Amino acid sequence: MSLKTYFPILDWGRRYNRQTLSSDLIAAVIVTIMLIPQSLAYALLAGLPPEVGLYASVLPLIAYAVFGTSSALAVGPVAVVSLMTAAAVGRVATQGTIDYASAAIMLALLSGVMLVLMGMLRLGFIANFLSHPVISGFITASGLIIATSQVGGLLGIKTEGHALPQLIGSIIEHIGEINLDTAAVGGVALALLLWIRLDLKNWLKRFGVPKGLATVIVRAGPVLVVFLTMAWSALMDLGSKGVALVGQVPQGLPMLSLPSFDFAIIQQLALPALIISIVGFVESISVAQTLAAKRRERITPNQELIGLGASNIAAAIGGGYPVTGGFARSVVNFDAGAATPAAGAFTAIGIASATLLLTPFLAILPKATLAATIVIAVLTLVDFSMLKRAWTYSKADFAAVAITLVGTLLLGVETGISLGVGASILVFLYRSSQPHAAVVGLVPGTEHYRNVKRHKVETVPGVLSIRIDESLYFANARYLEDLVINQVAANPGLTDIVLMCSAVNAIDMSALESLEAIHARLSDLKVRLHLSEVKGPVMDRLLGTEFLAHLSGQIHLSQHQAMLAIAAHRLAAPADAAHRPLDAAS
Amino acid sequence: MSLKTYFPILDWGRRYNRQTLSSDLIAAVIVTIMLIPQSLAYALLAGLPPEVGLYASVLPLIAYAVFGTSSALAVGPVAVVSLMTAAAVGRVATQGTIDYASAAIMLALLSGVMLVLMGMLRLGFIANFLSHPVISGFITASGLIIATSQVGGLLGIKTEGHALPQLIGSIIEHIGEINLDTAAVGGVALALLLWIRLDLKNWLKRFGVPKGLATVIVRAGPVLVVFLTMAWSALMDLGSKGVALVGQVPQGLPMLSLPSFDFAIIQQLALPALIISIVGFVESISVAQTLAAKRRERITPNQELIGLGASNIAAAIGGGYPVTGGFARSVVNFDAGAATPAAGAFTAIGIASATLLLTPFLAILPKATLAATIVIAVLTLVDFSMLKRAWTYSKADFAAVAITLVGTLLLGVETGISLGVGASILVFLYRSSQPHAAVVGLVPGTEHYRNVKRHKVETVPGVLSIRIDESLYFANARYLEDLVINQVAANPGLTDIVLMCSAVNAIDMSALESLEAIHARLSDLKVRLHLSEVKGPVMDRLLGTEFLAHLSGQIHLSQHQAMLAIAAHRLAAPADAAHRPLDAAS
Repeated sequence: MSLKTYFPILDWGRRYNRQTLSSDLIAAVIVTIMLIPQSLAYALLAGLPPEVGLYASVLPLIAYAVFGTSSALAVGPVAVVSLMTAAAVGRVATQGTIDYASAAIMLALLSGVMLVLMGMLRLGFIANFLSHPVISGFITASGLIIATSQVGGLLGIKTEGHALPQLIGSIIEHIGEINLDTAAVGGVALALLLWIRLDLKNWLKRFGVPKGLATVIVRAGPVLVVFLTMAWSALMDLGSKGVALVGQVPQGLPMLSLPSFDFAIIQQLALPALIISIVGFVESISVAQTLAAKRRERITPNQELIGLGASNIAAAIGGGYPVTGGFARSVVNFDAGAATPAAGAFTAIGIASATLLLTPFLAILPKATLAATIVIAVLTLVDFSMLKRAWTYSKADFAAVAITLVGTLLLGVETGISLGVGASILVFLYRSSQPHAAVVGLVPGTEHYRNVKRHKVETVPGVLSIRIDESLYFANARYLEDLVINQVAANPGLTDIVLMCSAVNAIDMSALESLEAIHARLSDLKVRLHLSEVKGPVMDRLLGTEFLAHLSGQIHLSQHQAMLAIAAHRLAAPADAAHRPLDAAS
Repeated sequence: MSLKTYFPILDWGRRYNRQTLSSDLIAAVIVTIMLIPQSLAYALLAGLPPEVGLYASVLPLIAYAVFGTSSALAVGPVAVVSLMTAAAVGRVATQGTIDYASAAIMLALLSGVMLVLMGMLRLGFIANFLSHPVISGFITASGLIIATSQVGGLLGIKTEGHALPQLIGSIIEHIGEINLDTAAVGGVALALLLWIRLDLKNWLKRFGVPKGLATVIVRAGPVLVVFLTMAWSALMDLGSKGVALVGQVPQGLPMLSLPSFDFAIIQQLALPALIISIVGFVESISVAQTLAAKRRERITPNQELIGLGASNIAAAIGGGYPVTGGFARSVVNFDAGAATPAAGAFTAIGIASATLLLTPFLAILPKATLAATIVIAVLTLVDFSMLKRAWTYSKADFAAVAITLVGTLLLGVETGISLGVGASILVFLYRSSQPHAAVVGLVPGTEHYRNVKRHKVETVPGVLSIRIDESLYFANARYLEDLVINQVAANPGLTDIVLMCSAVNAIDMSALESLEAIHARLSDLKVRLHLSEVKGPVMDRLLGTEFLAHLSGQIHLSQHQAMLAIAAHRLAAPADAAHRPLDAAS
């Protein structure tokens, strides 16, 4: 392990030149323009003042540039993590209070420390337990919840809750209190943003605008909508008409600080911080690996944990809230040509400058504009195609998607994703506790043995070959006993049973005891027990056990050699009554 | 499903005759004699009045005779379940109160209902998740805790707690309050019981007592100790000397009743009831199956759940507490010749008679005698040999035993066993998330392929065969991607990769997506991807997927056919640069 492992900047920094600099600068400008309205909006979604979103887009990006390994990943506030922050912090403090803001900072700090620890302990594999179906169901449900949570902001009514039932209930309850001016701003912003996303590019093309410029204009669209509605707000004095505005925000950048350490709060935030860390990491690593693959680059998952952890610690120090690598933003960064993580650092400088310039004007920005920004951004998260694909492929996978989706919608983000992970692990355990097994025979003309029910194969009377399609462990050990005993009962006249172990990747202590029990039962019935195709690692364990020392049959390298050896043994001992098929059961 | 499935009594009842009757009666007498002191003592261990142990030994035995499938299982109060009852009920009520007794009854009812439901829903497999190492560690730790908890009763001091630290702490705290008369009774009872167990049989043999009679005398030993210390207590008026006596107990049998339904209590008892149900079931089914195997009988696990459930519901109705099949008692029942479950019903009649006869005299029985009975009974539970065997066989299994043992000793029964189950599942998941994989080659002179690192095998340049030793699922899907990509990077000049799937028993949705990702990466590098030895159930799922439709290589029945087909393909297309080893990487 060299220093470069922990500080990837030492690696790519040495190769930095004028060309990578100009690529990174161009990407940074585009990402900055995209990030400004998003970071304001996502902070609002997290229940925080909008400027906190800007704070969370400065130091974390610099930290990632030092510790991260992806050249394209754009770190900052993202929709799903913002929703999860709102749900977690909402349980320990009231929105709008100082306690709320400092709990959000504490959440970022906890999440950062956990990520760094996971990275140093090489626990990146934990993320694998969030399966694709679970992630997909979770992201879709989060998108729906977030979009619904913005209806209030678009219409100027108050809504509450972080799950669908409460949100819809409070929308219905307050539907009579719509503010028409707010709804007008919200509606126009929504329509404009939708048009920018769907149609502006073609429209510019028709007017002969070059493709590069058109792309930049489209990316800048949301910022233009922000300026437009700010002007509307100022001209029509929307604030006096009851339209919710962002209001006065502290000027400039915040002082660097750390939150106060309240142990009771830390205890309540620990589990949400862990879930946020893992979800954020999985979201981030997926996009980072997808983009890296396109350029034939490598991502180091455990170092990515450290990079994201450092970003979150930086977010806490800079007065922000939990951040991670955003999907849409990273794709834009990649398309714009970001060549190294330095692009993120330049974006940070852009956002810091914008913070200094923008804060005086933010007071008149209608919150409905930000709500519209969020709705448009999260529409891409909603994707039901996984439900359909999972249904076709496997009902178990479908169950995992459906449980996560419905659980998240009805019970909120943390419960929903925990249910999904729990369900997918239970399905896996259940499946492996009821293993598939096949009686096998020889495929004619080969040395290959397959299931007698699926292939035309040859078998030998008195010899039963069973292929067990699962590792043997405590959850299926008893099942194996029943299986073999039932097969023996159903096949009178047996002299030999061969357990074909080509699919047995491990045998644990419980399964070893079951094998001993099976062996004892078969010995009573004068049936010899053989094993074939036992794998190296499994054989290493069995050597030196009582089971192997007393085995009535043999261990054969291949199933075919087992059958040949049994045939040879019969020829050699034809008078041995115990091994003659018809007498064995007597 | 005939009525006989749910009422096994209809089956064996028809075949009942004078011979089975006399066998059952003899066994019942011996078990009754053994059960009397044990049931008194175990009730005390559960924190209940001793007579409750007798109540729990009447109706449950009759219920099991009707619904159970084992001819030898002797149901009633057992040590480990009594300890678990004390731990669970102690959290919702204070010992000695009516609330405590009715909570114990509620626990039996809940456990009974759960067991019956599990049986009807055929959920017997849940018990498989208690692995042998976990059970072994749990029983040993419970034995140690129970023995320690009786030190107070033997010395006449007060102790508290259901885990080792509190118990030892309170023994040390109160060590100065020893009552010498109690310690004398306790010491004599302990010494006598130990002598009866270890030496009485040989001693009787030396005096020429026939073997059968000697066995009966040894079994009756504990009852004799009870009578002896009762006489001691009466003659020396031990009660006035501060020796704790059983005291007045209600005469006769209790009225049949059901506990009052307090929802808050039910909620608190639900999880302990579930754990007690599963532990009791596993303990019971293990001994039932061991004994059944000796007589070539069959036990039906799901019907056993119903039998034990009915016993516990009967325990609740009869004013008892949770019961299950006891190990030592069932072995005695078996050895004494019990031929059908009717032996249990006769034992119930014996205990009911004893309850009517004994209760007037129980008042003067020193509790120290019962404490000594418990200590002797649980000594057989303590067995450290599993620790040693697991250490030799597999460190993962050792960890499961050690975690359960230490967890139970330090944190109590419920936490301990939950930690053990959790640890063994985590170990399994971790192992399967980091699967073993081997590059394989042909064993010369056969069609069999094995690991190149372990066997002398032949490989073909440009073709890499990887055998994956695990089902592919979400937890190892990403691992597989890394594995294949790294192998490709390490082997320039590849034209074909064969994934040998003989050990792949399932491919879930996440793994399918990983296979698609691998396929896309390999296609970019102009390497064809083949699969071989795909199992029937896996193939069924893959049919109709995009992955199979676009696969660059083929699916081969056997690894050998895959190699032959690739060789044939090369011969057929020698000019195809993309498939010539040395050009492929360019």
